Amino acid sequence: MVRLAFSISLRYDVGPPGADFVFNLQAAHTPQQTVVAEELHVSPPLTLRTHTDPATRARILQLSAPPGPLHLRHQATVDVVHHMADPASVPEVPVAQLPPEVLPYLYPSRYCPSDRLGRLAMRHFGHLPQGFLRVQAVQQWVQQQVSFQSNTSNSTTWALDTLTEGVGVCRDFAHLMIALCRALNIPARFTTGIDYGADPALGPTDFHAYVEAYLGHRWYLFDPSGTAMPMGFIRIGTGRDAADVSFATIFGNVTSMAPLIEIRALTCPGQPWREPVHCQEALSTG
Amino acid sequence: MVRLAFSISLRYDVGPPGADFVFNLQAAHTPQQTVVAEELHVSPPLTLRTHTDPATRARILQLSAPPGPLHLRHQATVDVVHHMADPASVPEVPVAQLPPEVLPYLYPSRYCPSDRLGRLAMRHFGHLPQGFLRVQAVQQWVQQQVSFQSNTSNSTTWALDTLTEGVGVCRDFAHLMIALCRALNIPARFTTGIDYGADPALGPTDFHAYVEAYLGHRWYLFDPSGTAMPMGFIRIGTGRDAADVSFATIFGNVTSMAPLIEIRALTCPGQPWREPVHCQEALSTG
Amino acid sequence: MVRLAFSISLRYDVGPPGADFVFNLQAAHTPQQTVVAEELHVSPPLTLRTHTDPATRARILQLSAPPGPLHLRHQATVDVVHHMADPASVPEVPVAQLPPEVLPYLYPSRYCPSDRLGRLAMRHFGHLPQGFLRVQAVQQWVQQQVSFQSNTSNSTTWALDTLTEGVGVCRDFAHLMIALCRALNIPARFTTGIDYGADPALGPTDFHAYVEAYLGHRWYLFDPSGTAMPMGFIRIGTGRDAADVSFATIFGNVTSMAPLIEIRALTCPGQPWREPVHCQEALSTG
Amino acid sequence: MVRLAFSISLRYDVGPPGADFVFNLQAAHTPQQTVVAEELHVSPPLTLRTHTDPATRARILQLSAPPGPLHLRHQATVDVVHHMADPASVPEVPVAQLPPEVLPYLYPSRYCPSDRLGRLAMRHFGHLPQGFLRVQAVQQWVQQQVSFQSNTSNSTTWALDTLTEGVGVCRDFAHLMIALCRALNIPARFTTGIDYGADPALGPTDFHAYVEAYLGHRWYLFDPSGTAMPMGFIRIGTGRDAADVSFATIFGNVTSMAPLIEIRALTCPGQPWREPVHCQEALSTG
Repeated sequence: MVRLAFSISLRYDVGPPGADFVFNLQAAHTPQQTVVAEELHVSPPLTLRTHTDPATRARILQLSAPPGPLHLRHQATVDVVHHMADPASVPEVPVAQLPPEVLPYLYPSRYCPSDRLGRLAMRHFGHLPQGFLRVQAVQQWVQQQVSFQSNTSNSTTWALDTLTEGVGVCRDFAHLMIALCRALNIPARFTTGIDYGADPALGPTDFHAYVEAYLGHRWYLFDPSGTAMPMGFIRIGTGRDAADVSFATIFGNVTSMAPLIEIRALTCPGQPWREPVHCQEALSTG
Repeated sequence: MVRLAFSISLRYDVGPPGADFVFNLQAAHTPQQTVVAEELHVSPPLTLRTHTDPATRARILQLSAPPGPLHLRHQATVDVVHHMADPASVPEVPVAQLPPEVLPYLYPSRYCPSDRLGRLAMRHFGHLPQGFLRVQAVQQWVQQQVSFQSNTSNSTTWALDTLTEGVGVCRDFAHLMIALCRALNIPARFTTGIDYGADPALGPTDFHAYVEAYLGHRWYLFDPSGTAMPMGFIRIGTGRDAADVSFATIFGNVTSMAPLIEIRALTCPGQPWREPVHCQEALSTG
Repeated sequence: MVRLAFSISLRYDVGPPGADFVFNLQAAHTPQQTVVAEELHVSPPLTLRTHTDPATRARILQLSAPPGPLHLRHQATVDVVHHMADPASVPEVPVAQLPPEVLPYLYPSRYCPSDRLGRLAMRHFGHLPQGFLRVQAVQQWVQQQVSFQSNTSNSTTWALDTLTEGVGVCRDFAHLMIALCRALNIPARFTTGIDYGADPALGPTDFHAYVEAYLGHRWYLFDPSGTAMPMGFIRIGTGRDAADVSFATIFGNVTSMAPLIEIRALTCPGQPWREPVHCQEALSTG
Repeated sequence: MVRLAFSISLRYDVGPPGADFVFNLQAAHTPQQTVVAEELHVSPPLTLRTHTDPATRARILQLSAPPGPLHLRHQATVDVVHHMADPASVPEVPVAQLPPEVLPYLYPSRYCPSDRLGRLAMRHFGHLPQGFLRVQAVQQWVQQQVSFQSNTSNSTTWALDTLTEGVGVCRDFAHLMIALCRALNIPARFTTGIDYGADPALGPTDFHAYVEAYLGHRWYLFDPSGTAMPMGFIRIGTGRDAADVSFATIFGNVTSMAPLIEIRALTCPGQPWREPVHCQEALSTG
């Protein structure tokens, strides 16, 4: 188990006549991620509508803000329990044995057009033995093809752009890896969160995007951009791709400031606690 | 209420070493669509795994078939109750009042990249009064821009292709209309089914795709291809776009024969029954 | 005849180990555009290779620069003679009568994929009487579909993006108009230059892009972005689209400063001179 | 020198009110390709307009055909002299030394958007020593990424599709190789013709597309689809990509029959003649 505490501070300037927001920025409550403590402050005080998606456990927060400044601050302490496995022992799940709720993660989505990549995926990965190590080969190939560079993609960039242009940020690495996994009939999804232990050379802590692939009847974590430490990851949203889990969807004329995010690892005396580290094991939290 | 009976016959030739199938072809059980009677025959006899999506009520059928012929036959009789409204009276729902389970239908999806069409949608429809009639204006515009022509699109065609190339089949009309609605912040989804009363000039009865837009806190039916009669529509699948509700997703080396589909309207003595007709009212079944 | 004088000042900072440049920024010598006087200064002094394209009359300047600052300054005075015609009197040229050297301007090019727009072009413009007025209808339609906005496109933006996204700068308006003309079997090309009389609200004088359509056995000028005055236009480059006539193509690690451009109209005593104005006539300079 | 004789027979059924054609199907007259004898028959007899492009030597044939059958038959005997070089000895030409007429082959074109592939090209080929062998490495990489399969592409397929979908015919292989060469600042062009010695398993003799890259101040031949024998190649058209050199561009309502093409190698007694063979040398005919 690891214990992590984080805070997110978001500031907006809402233009007339006000704006609607859909946020997805609170730590998810899942069987393997326990929210020990959390707070949410919204200023000015507004009516909040909240909803937890029954399937993904993502927490949606809807609000309407009047013109003027809007400030949200969320902080939480979470305990994350990791299932660990020997990478060589984790198999793929035959399509016929996939649970029906997992099937949508086989289908193409806005940023992951797996229907366009079948041949390429089979050429590069079709001959490899099935299992976790094949997905890891996909991850490594994506890292070889794509360079991490800020401000090289935008909200319309999809996996085909990333493949041909060879550059992107964490969401783009994730989209390309997901598209390739689905093209191999391996369910894959997009997970957002905050991560402890990122390379400080990449700048201040920010939202991060991971991949989860469905293997051995669990969702295993992969970090295709290679910038973070999967064991230090707090789950916020889970979806098919970035279209599903934007941390803020804004309807109106709004100026956004850069989010301020902090995260730290806590000790947890008297419990089977550990410090997050880079590890060789296959990790699953969902 | 209308009562409709339909049958679907699907034939495949499965190559070695066998194949996996995910079907979505049974009539949905919904509050407004009652399945009065139904049968499903699969030959050879196989283990069937079935699942009803709790959110969309779509029915998933998974099976693994050995090499050789595979034949599925589904027939059902359904009663469909239509909510009818005066088009001029049906409002749009402000984003802040949308139920959270409706929000995903605002987001872009594989074939409906609404994130690319915001400006175009606002230019053409931004000045119109909000409500059902605005969505109808979107439908009419799509019909003006696109010609119905068989075999002009494929499984990779998305709404931007349809917009620039001006040709397609029912799925393409639906995708373009959905993308434009979402670009206007109107939730829209893709519905598949069988329809009674289609123009016989278009060939034998086939699967059809419709649009549903979320208006006045209901999902209203639209037929952007203009080839069918919404009152004669039986719901099978409901999803974000065609990626979610393919009637058959096939994993393996399989030859498919053209589906054979029949539909007819039944009388329903002693009940408030009616013959399906083209009507001016806004229709909702979901 | 109008007499115009302009100057272009370009500054670069060339990184090691030096860089190669291909410039296309000098006023073209054509039968209707006489260069009365011109100067070119390059600092530091470098070996210049110059070439005039025999077909388009575009002037190419190649040079290799060492690391350090590079400054080019070109100024010229040109007399432009305009062929003027009554728009209603200018016909299209049947394909069978097109001169062979004009045929390439019927074919799709990098930014003008006319092969993708045939159906859309025919739907909107196929029913109109052929001639200059039909091309003007294309120009007006493009202006209705696209908003002028700086920094909304880049060097990979093509006409399909402009069509679906509805925004761009002069090159994007030109590319979309060219693609539509070609889709109607009307040869169209991309012309770059400096223009006198642009709307000062659009910022400092900059390079501009126009369209020329081949009608009545001449190339007639069109300004689809509607920001300039065709009579005040000095021709620099002529090509199929922006790929052909970039004012500077740079090979190496170079920092570019914004170009400084000035233009003014001169009087020309004793000759049939006029001040450039917006006019209703069809104008041709090529 | 090799001596080759070929014939092309094209049949069309022209609908009312007739149609215009632009053909590019005659053997080019170039310094290294001498047309020893040739014939052109058109039935019914029609007015033919012919033109040889001064830059590429491509021969354009324009005609207008009335409704009814149209038959063209072209046959020619050509002598092709090959410049041969040791692959290891052929250098790239620095941009600053490129002749100006070669520069357009550095720029992106309709099917070869080299502007989108810079990073990918540099990642795979940027570290290789410059010269013929680097271009050969590009060719081999394209062959590894793409499978030859008939009817998998169409007239809108560009190099990015070929790269992501991994399948195509000779034009697609050529477009992807050209785009990658240009992204490396190596001029590359698209050549069409008839080839002697193709693999008979690929079906009857058909038009073929090659790549030429500008190296060592010559245009060297490459066959990225690997299906033919460069020494057995007769040049018809030369352009930036397939948009420039379609063997038949048709304006009107026309039904086309499959072309009938024959080619054979002749002996040439008393001259330094040879049989076309697969060879290891770098070959240039232009």
